[in-house]
Parts: sequence; structure tokens; C-alpha cells
Amino acid sequence: VVTVTNPPKSPRTELRRLPDKASADLADLHAVLDAGRVAHVAFATDEGIFNIPVAYARDGDRLLIHGSTGSRLFRTLASGTTATVSVTLLHGLVLARSAFESSMQYRSAMVFGSPSLVSEDQMLTALRAMVDTWMPSRWDDLRPPTKRELAATMVLELPLLEWSVKLSMRDPEDPPEDLDEPVWAGVLPIERRYGNPIPAPDLRDDHEVPRYLGDWSI
Amino acid sequence: VVTVTNPPKSPRTELRRLPDKASADLADLHAVLDAGRVAHVAFATDEGIFNIPVAYARDGDRLLIHGSTGSRLFRTLASGTTATVSVTLLHGLVLARSAFESSMQYRSAMVFGSPSLVSEDQMLTALRAMVDTWMPSRWDDLRPPTKRELAATMVLELPLLEWSVKLSMRDPEDPPEDLDEPVWAGVLPIERRYGNPIPAPDLRDDHEVPRYLGDWSI
Repeated sequence: VVTVTNPPKSPRTELRRLPDKASADLADLHAVLDAGRVAHVAFATDEGIFNIPVAYARDGDRLLIHGSTGSRLFRTLASGTTATVSVTLLHGLVLARSAFESSMQYRSAMVFGSPSLVSEDQMLTALRAMVDTWMPSRWDDLRPPTKRELAATMVLELPLLEWSVKLSMRDPEDPPEDLDEPVWAGVLPIERRYGNPIPAPDLRDDHEVPRYLGDWSI
Repeated sequence: VVTVTNPPKSPRTELRRLPDKASADLADLHAVLDAGRVAHVAFATDEGIFNIPVAYARDGDRLLIHGSTGSRLFRTLASGTTATVSVTLLHGLVLARSAFESSMQYRSAMVFGSPSLVSEDQMLTALRAMVDTWMPSRWDDLRPPTKRELAATMVLELPLLEWSVKLSMRDPEDPPEDLDEPVWAGVLPIERRYGNPIPAPDLRDDHEVPRYLGDWSI
């Protein structure tokens, strides 16, 4: 396990605007990445920049993503290209007394790097780490992946080495002259949660909803 | 108003994998964009590719984003660069009988184009369109933007001309040989909603929560 503390200074991870919103704390990076599920992965190709949504998991000091060996975009990502991976969590609307001061509460992370292919002998460990992140306790309920399935899957890892984090969880910050405006101000929180599980139409009727689903949160 | 129907064929908007998930229907594009609030905007700079989260609004056949005139990233975006803007909505976990078939329910859109600066005389209209999208009915409760505020704000528009949409809202699709696996399968929906409004700490106590907040959804 590589232990990465604060990121090395780099021109592109240094926030020049609103520096009070930046965090160089690795714990903040981990918190943002652990709360998200989908990242947007931007990378250049011959056809321009793509920006694809992928499910990801943080496993220690790396991000894991996976895709099909038949996907040209994943093959491009695995070929040594650099990528910029962003995760954003929207937590609320900030309703100030003016449009200008109104904003959103959010946390976001941007990671720069070159994804590399996880080797065949490490693939099962990486796949398990992803399933354990997205669907804790489920791995043992599922049959093991087949050789054919593993051969059809590409797992990529991106080290958490060069990154930036922005945290904006503030109340409205109206200037003093706006405080007498005749309007309510505050925060409207945005909540995300799992709803009730919906059985598959082809489910055999003797399988109950697993108890571990009740422990999952998002 | 420019009416754009289906997108012109372009190599980068044509989905080569899982084509059953692609949609060329403008109504689907609009539905995805209207349900989202944050887009990830990827673009190349001298320092590599950035991929920044921005609040956006769809206004007819364009996307609107705004930022500070002091932001180097917004200045780069306004300078004629091309950008790839992605919006993804995560709707559920698809719990199949195997890790391989497990996936997520989502809708996503990717828009390619060159953002341009909204001219000064069109800025107020564009800002109002954004406020009306994010906070319906609130515009009339807020004092008008000042000249200083307008001068500090940059509004960019991106025409919805070259785009792709992916829709993946399926049930688990396990192969027949997995249907007897002794495990529950189905979909765990992900719900997003507004919580209870939280008054600003500096709120004067004679302002009630506006009724229109009860009509907002996310």
C-alpha cells in the first residue's frame, strides 16, 4: 500500500479562484470519492475530447474503473493516454438575497493521471474491491466470475497522485446591504438515498431481499 | 429559435458499443439535460485537460453556464476552445445474479461544441433563464443584478448541435443458466429530492419560507 499524503504542488491542482474552497487534505479527497459512484473521465482521442461517465471505486490510493475489452474508448484509456477524472456531489441550493450570491453546496474532486491496465492475476482482487464498494456483502452471494467473463473485462487503475478538491458547503454570504432585502434566504439541501428494492421480473419466488441491502447507503 | 431535430451523424456521437442504449431522440436529450443540474465540462489547456463541474441550464437549443470574469478557466472556455460537456443521472443499481451482469441504471448526455460568450445586452435574459431553471419563481423575489455584478459575470452558451445520449434503464439481464442461482436479483432505485429548507443564520425573522419552494423538484 502506497501512502500518499498531501498532493505535490502542481500548477493545475492549485486553485487560483476562491482558494478558501480548496482542500489539500487527503481525507477530504477520500471522503468525496467514497461518497460518489459515477466519475466523468475526460481524455483526448483523434476525434476530440471524450468525457465519459463510469462507475468507479476507490481502493486505497487508486481509483478503479472497468469496461469491456471490446470498447474502443476503454482501449484508448488503457493505451497510456492521460485522463482527467472528476467526481462531483451536489448537496444543496444556496438561496441568497440576490441572484449573484446564490450558488450551490457541493464537493468535487479532479484527478489527473494515466490509467493503467490491472494485470490478469490482480483482476479478481480489483473486481472484488469494486463490488465490495458498490454492493457491500454481495460478493459472497454471487457465483465467481467465469474465465470468459474475465477475458471480456478490462480493469484500469488510476493512482491518486495529482488531484485537487473543492469544498463549498457554505451558507448564503450576502453583503450587509442586502440583509434587509424582503426575501427568505437559506439552504435547500439535496438528499440522495436508495428507494425500495424492485424484484427482477424473472426472479424465482423463493429468494428474499438480502438483509445487507438495508445497510447500504448512497 | 433554432429547431434542431436529430443530431447530424458524426463519428464521435455514434455509439459503437451497446447501440441499443443510444438514443437519437432530441426529446431524450432534453429530458436528461432538464433533470440534471451539474455538468462536467472538459477542455484542453496548456496544462492538460481540465474537467470542471458547472451548474448549467438548458434554454431551448442551447446550454447556459456562467462564471466569474476573473476565472482563467472560464476565460479559456470563452476563447473559442472546444469543450465536451457531460451530464449523467444515476437512477439505480442493477443487482444481477453475477458480478458480470450487475450494472447501473443511468441516463447520460455528451455535448460537443465551442462555447461562446453571451453578449452584454443578452446577459440579463440568459441569467433569468438560469434562475428560472434552478429556482423557479424566485427571480421576481430578488433585487435586479447590479451593473457591477453583471460586469463580474461571464455567461457562455453552447448550442445543442452535436451530441449523444445513452439510456440504460433495464432490469437485470442474466443469461438463462444463471436464473437458478440462489440469490435475489432486481433493481435498487436511487432517489434524489430536496430536504427541508434551512434558514440562513443571518436571516431576519420576519421572512417566511416562500411557497414556491414546495413546487421545486430535483
